[in-house]
Amino acid sequence: MATIAFLGLGNMGYPMAGHLANSGHQLRVFNRTHNKAQRWAEEFPGTACTTPATTTHNADAVILCVGRDADVRELLNDQLLAQLQPGTLLIDHTTTSARLAEELAARCAEQGLRFADVPVSGGQQGAINGQLSLMAGCAAADYDDIVRITAPYTRLIERLGNPGCGQKAKMVNQICVAGLIQALAEGLQFARNAGLDAEQVMKVIGQGAASSWQLQNRHQTMLNGEFDHGFAVDWMRKDLQICLQEALHNGSSLPVTALVDQFYGELQQQGAGKLDTSALLLRLPKSSR
Amino acid sequence: MATIAFLGLGNMGYPMAGHLANSGHQLRVFNRTHNKAQRWAEEFPGTACTTPATTTHNADAVILCVGRDADVRELLNDQLLAQLQPGTLLIDHTTTSARLAEELAARCAEQGLRFADVPVSGGQQGAINGQLSLMAGCAAADYDDIVRITAPYTRLIERLGNPGCGQKAKMVNQICVAGLIQALAEGLQFARNAGLDAEQVMKVIGQGAASSWQLQNRHQTMLNGEFDHGFAVDWMRKDLQICLQEALHNGSSLPVTALVDQFYGELQQQGAGKLDTSALLLRLPKSSR
Amino acid sequence: MATIAFLGLGNMGYPMAGHLANSGHQLRVFNRTHNKAQRWAEEFPGTACTTPATTTHNADAVILCVGRDADVRELLNDQLLAQLQPGTLLIDHTTTSARLAEELAARCAEQGLRFADVPVSGGQQGAINGQLSLMAGCAAADYDDIVRITAPYTRLIERLGNPGCGQKAKMVNQICVAGLIQALAEGLQFARNAGLDAEQVMKVIGQGAASSWQLQNRHQTMLNGEFDHGFAVDWMRKDLQICLQEALHNGSSLPVTALVDQFYGELQQQGAGKLDTSALLLRLPKSSR
Amino acid sequence: MATIAFLGLGNMGYPMAGHLANSGHQLRVFNRTHNKAQRWAEEFPGTACTTPATTTHNADAVILCVGRDADVRELLNDQLLAQLQPGTLLIDHTTTSARLAEELAARCAEQGLRFADVPVSGGQQGAINGQLSLMAGCAAADYDDIVRITAPYTRLIERLGNPGCGQKAKMVNQICVAGLIQALAEGLQFARNAGLDAEQVMKVIGQGAASSWQLQNRHQTMLNGEFDHGFAVDWMRKDLQICLQEALHNGSSLPVTALVDQFYGELQQQGAGKLDTSALLLRLPKSSR
Ligand SMILES: NC(=O)C1=CN([C@@H]2O[C@H](COP(=O)(O)OP(=O)(O)OC[C@H]3O[C@@H](n4cnc5c(N)ncnc54)[C@H](OP(=O)(O)O)[C@@H]3O)[C@@H](O)[C@H]2O)C=CC1
Ligand SMILES: NC(=O)C1=CN([C@@H]2O[C@H](COP(=O)(O)OP(=O)(O)OC[C@H]3O[C@@H](n4cnc5c(N)ncnc54)[C@H](OP(=O)(O)O)[C@@H]3O)[C@@H](O)[C@H]2O)C=CC1
Ligand SMILES: NC(=O)C1=CN([C@@H]2O[C@H](COP(=O)(O)OP(=O)(O)OC[C@H]3O[C@@H](n4cnc5c(N)ncnc54)[C@H](OP(=O)(O)O)[C@@H]3O)[C@@H](O)[C@H]2O)C=CC1
Repeated sequence: MATIAFLGLGNMGYPMAGHLANSGHQLRVFNRTHNKAQRWAEEFPGTACTTPATTTHNADAVILCVGRDADVRELLNDQLLAQLQPGTLLIDHTTTSARLAEELAARCAEQGLRFADVPVSGGQQGAINGQLSLMAGCAAADYDDIVRITAPYTRLIERLGNPGCGQKAKMVNQICVAGLIQALAEGLQFARNAGLDAEQVMKVIGQGAASSWQLQNRHQTMLNGEFDHGFAVDWMRKDLQICLQEALHNGSSLPVTALVDQFYGELQQQGAGKLDTSALLLRLPKSSR
Repeated sequence: MATIAFLGLGNMGYPMAGHLANSGHQLRVFNRTHNKAQRWAEEFPGTACTTPATTTHNADAVILCVGRDADVRELLNDQLLAQLQPGTLLIDHTTTSARLAEELAARCAEQGLRFADVPVSGGQQGAINGQLSLMAGCAAADYDDIVRITAPYTRLIERLGNPGCGQKAKMVNQICVAGLIQALAEGLQFARNAGLDAEQVMKVIGQGAASSWQLQNRHQTMLNGEFDHGFAVDWMRKDLQICLQEALHNGSSLPVTALVDQFYGELQQQGAGKLDTSALLLRLPKSSR
Repeated sequence: MATIAFLGLGNMGYPMAGHLANSGHQLRVFNRTHNKAQRWAEEFPGTACTTPATTTHNADAVILCVGRDADVRELLNDQLLAQLQPGTLLIDHTTTSARLAEELAARCAEQGLRFADVPVSGGQQGAINGQLSLMAGCAAADYDDIVRITAPYTRLIERLGNPGCGQKAKMVNQICVAGLIQALAEGLQFARNAGLDAEQVMKVIGQGAASSWQLQNRHQTMLNGEFDHGFAVDWMRKDLQICLQEALHNGSSLPVTALVDQFYGELQQQGAGKLDTSALLLRLPKSSR
Repeated sequence: MATIAFLGLGNMGYPMAGHLANSGHQLRVFNRTHNKAQRWAEEFPGTACTTPATTTHNADAVILCVGRDADVRELLNDQLLAQLQPGTLLIDHTTTSARLAEELAARCAEQGLRFADVPVSGGQQGAINGQLSLMAGCAAADYDDIVRITAPYTRLIERLGNPGCGQKAKMVNQICVAGLIQALAEGLQFARNAGLDAEQVMKVIGQGAASSWQLQNRHQTMLNGEFDHGFAVDWMRKDLQICLQEALHNGSSLPVTALVDQFYGELQQQGAGKLDTSALLLRLPKSSR
């Protein structure tokens, strides 16, 4: 069993760290807003620390799950990296740019540390159930350790390549999701405006060519106007910016993704940034007829 | 067992009529290009007729599966309708406008006939395996007869409402599909341009929020550049026109659907009209890097 | 001077017929809603008739400016055409499909009549000032007569080709306009959200690469939120449908036009169908910051 | 007359610096690739320097016209700023982010320097003819000096607000341009595919609601397939990224701009990055009919 420092106890990190603690690892956790860390330590076996440095001190592995590039940069600053023991494994579950992962991997390598970007998918529910999909970008030699450590919350893990590749795979995920949800929203809106029982339509089209995880898991809440759950528009926009930036570099054309990104922006302006990504339905007109 | 006239032995109609014949119904089939009807009659128990009128003479049910509105209008002309016995059930499996279905239902009612629009989904494979999903628009009183007759090739059937509603449900299906495939194509392109093993990416994202029937069933052929199968771009464009026209009437906004429709038009101009709808990938640039 | 029948005294037709009357032609006018024709006859020298047939009886030329395809078809029915003298020139100023113009030209030719589609641009103001641009689709032999007759309200006229070509040129106009206005709306919105004096920005960018008739003539009203004038969203949508249908046939890809058409649809659902096309600005968010 | 340091003798800077020299100012010029500076010094009265530091030494004003944010940062580094005399006026004609302008203005203020972002429009032709439009972001107190110094190449100048505001106005310009050109390209393509004489169509629609600088000045070259001039796709993409980033911050929705940006990306992948922005026409299909 290992000593693991876990930084970032948000919707995802909180239950992930919990799984690690429950599986017997020695957990030290840190959260910017300390009372979440305290609550965590009451619920799970492990220690709530008050600074990143004390949390990571002598840890075998340091795991992060925070917000965005800037947040990771702030935590994994030179000072903190300098304190870590040689060979320490850093696993970043944050969805960030690939560039950040590449930079950090290079900086870690210089210090004898091992860095892996391992963004996840599966949502808060997946984190709670320990059923996440993990996309790893890491040195081949580090992969087994990552698999072992992350096992308590992992349903599926793949190593996509060197550092940065985990993030790139996650981008593919988000690109596939954005257009898909808009398409589903257009379909649901149309069903409703056509005077159909949209629920029933989803039942009959839900097995074939139109079917998707989103259709299965979101059509009902969308039709009910429930968007107060799931993956927030604000997060999605952050991720789509990352995708669009990376596409600039790798020469991909993302017309629908770029368009849907703007639609998410309209939702943010309407104050819907905290709602689930399926809130795209809210932008579409209810027929006045 | 009933006497059934089946008009249109294309990719879909041929196997559908076959299932009916194999299940014991008395089949009379017609196809514009007669040799397909002859071939059918060699493969299945039933009679190949040379005109719609002889095919439908004294039939209990008349089933169509042809191309588009104009084709249905041509076949179900006043002369033909006038010859049918009162109470005959007409089932149109063609994907058409809802307007056509409404018109035909009205004209049939005047003549004491019963009309149902029952577009299908599931593709040629679904037709061959007798595993189609059927979306019925019909009088409530006619539904049981439709369920019984279509059972040999049906996995799932729902009555969505009166005539026209089957077509409207099929439109929802196509709207959900169009944006979804474009999103998937953008994702696959990105994966490739990012230097990832796209196959592997699909494996890891294929269970969660990005997952879809298209991702599961098409990513491999898309990556292999195989588009010579499935549902043709030309058919899709026909269907999207129907959707966009209906949206004009019911007040829906379909920005992504309208955009993808134009992209399908670009494929048609490139001579890709006969390829599968997943050919959207062909429009997207392979990175020059 | 000729005897001219003018059908349709809407925003455009009313002043156009007035110019003809003022220039010395013998005018007989018809309007579906008769009191407009009466009002016209009080303002201009000419006769208000109560039926299309009496209006067009023995006329040298029949001019139309009504709403859409169906309206033209209704007026120029077989009965009416049969009553016209051989050689009568029919000039349709309505914006319609090219298909309609082609059909009518063929039907007229059969009856020894001469048909020309001559859609206009320049707006109500251009009609009032007699400063319209005319796009003629007609037999070469008829062009001189058309030029002569339409002179009182024409600033510029071109013969683009045979019947239908006038409408196609008008479509080019509308395609250029739709994306342009959306771009302008995006720019104005951005200027405002950026905290700039948008008026001043228009002044400085209004001479160069970003400049356009719309920028010059509409930015002020757009910024003032004045949309109660000009060319209505409902008319624009009708026209864009015509463009998109024609593009289907001629193999053009209109991604931005198709997208903006959906945005116009959203305006219609918001009850803004009667507002000027520049109302696209209303769809865009005012920054909450 | 003042001593002016001019950094960046590209398509724009070369003639701009020339106008300054011709109008009697004492010019010292620098270009990364020195032979351009030498050529310049042969053509105009002034001195070609070999380093930014020698160029700017004791200058009254320092003017830049280089490529992008990073280039400006590289030139205006702390070392160079520290060498400038208090009160020196820095005028950046580069199109950059507003953020850069704000940062530089703050850093300059700390050093007793005066910074203004003054992006231009009018193209290389405007630079050669001394007929540019200038959008100034500067302290009110500095505006008169800027007007005086830039007069030799300026047709129109406006102060839009404090530093950053010039760049924001230029963004409005680019947003208006991007969608406008795509609309024009769609129209020209349509005209051609419709079998019209596109030149003639432009003539007849070129006065009214569809008219624009781009239509007037680019339709002929677009139809001739001439794109080897003007403002390059690569520059446009740089600018649109700046616009889209700023829109993220100010809450604007730019659906058409975002879409056209992707289309420009497709051109880049086709190797058309150096062509004029009007090359959007190349993406659109020539009808196979
Ligand atoms: N293919 C698919 O995966 C799916 C198709 N559909 C829909 O099902 C319908 C049929 O598709 P599919 O079978 O693939 O198409 P095909 O092109 O394979 O077959 C069309 C059939 O209709 C006949 N036909 C067409 N026009 C006429 C006419 N005017 N008069 C008489 N017969 C005519 C054709 O006759 P001929 O042999 O002489 O050409 C042919 O038998 C379409 O509406 C399609 O949109 C729905 C779901 C899936
Ligand atoms: N307005 C503009 O700025 C421009 C308009 N156009 C085009 O010109 C045409 C006319 O536009 P505009 O004058 O603005 O439209 P209006 O709605 O103001 O007028 C339409 C006219 O057509 C008549 N009409 C409509 N349908 C019928 C019918 N079925 N039978 C008889 N009369 C009918 C109306 O009669 P009633 O009075 O009874 O309703 C009315 O006189 C349209 O095609 C439009 O697209 C072109 C360029 C600019
Ligand atoms: N061209 C146009 O029509 C318009 C351009 N603009 C904007 O004006 C700016 C200049 O455009 P343009 O003149 O066309 O561009 P060019 O590429 O022709 O010139 C760029 C100039 O910047 C210099 N440069 C670039 N990077 C650096 C660096 N890191 N250090 C030193 N010098 C550098 C180049 O030097 P070197 O010669 O060594 O490459 C060159 O002199 C851009 O921001 C552009 O967006 C604005 C309006 C119109």
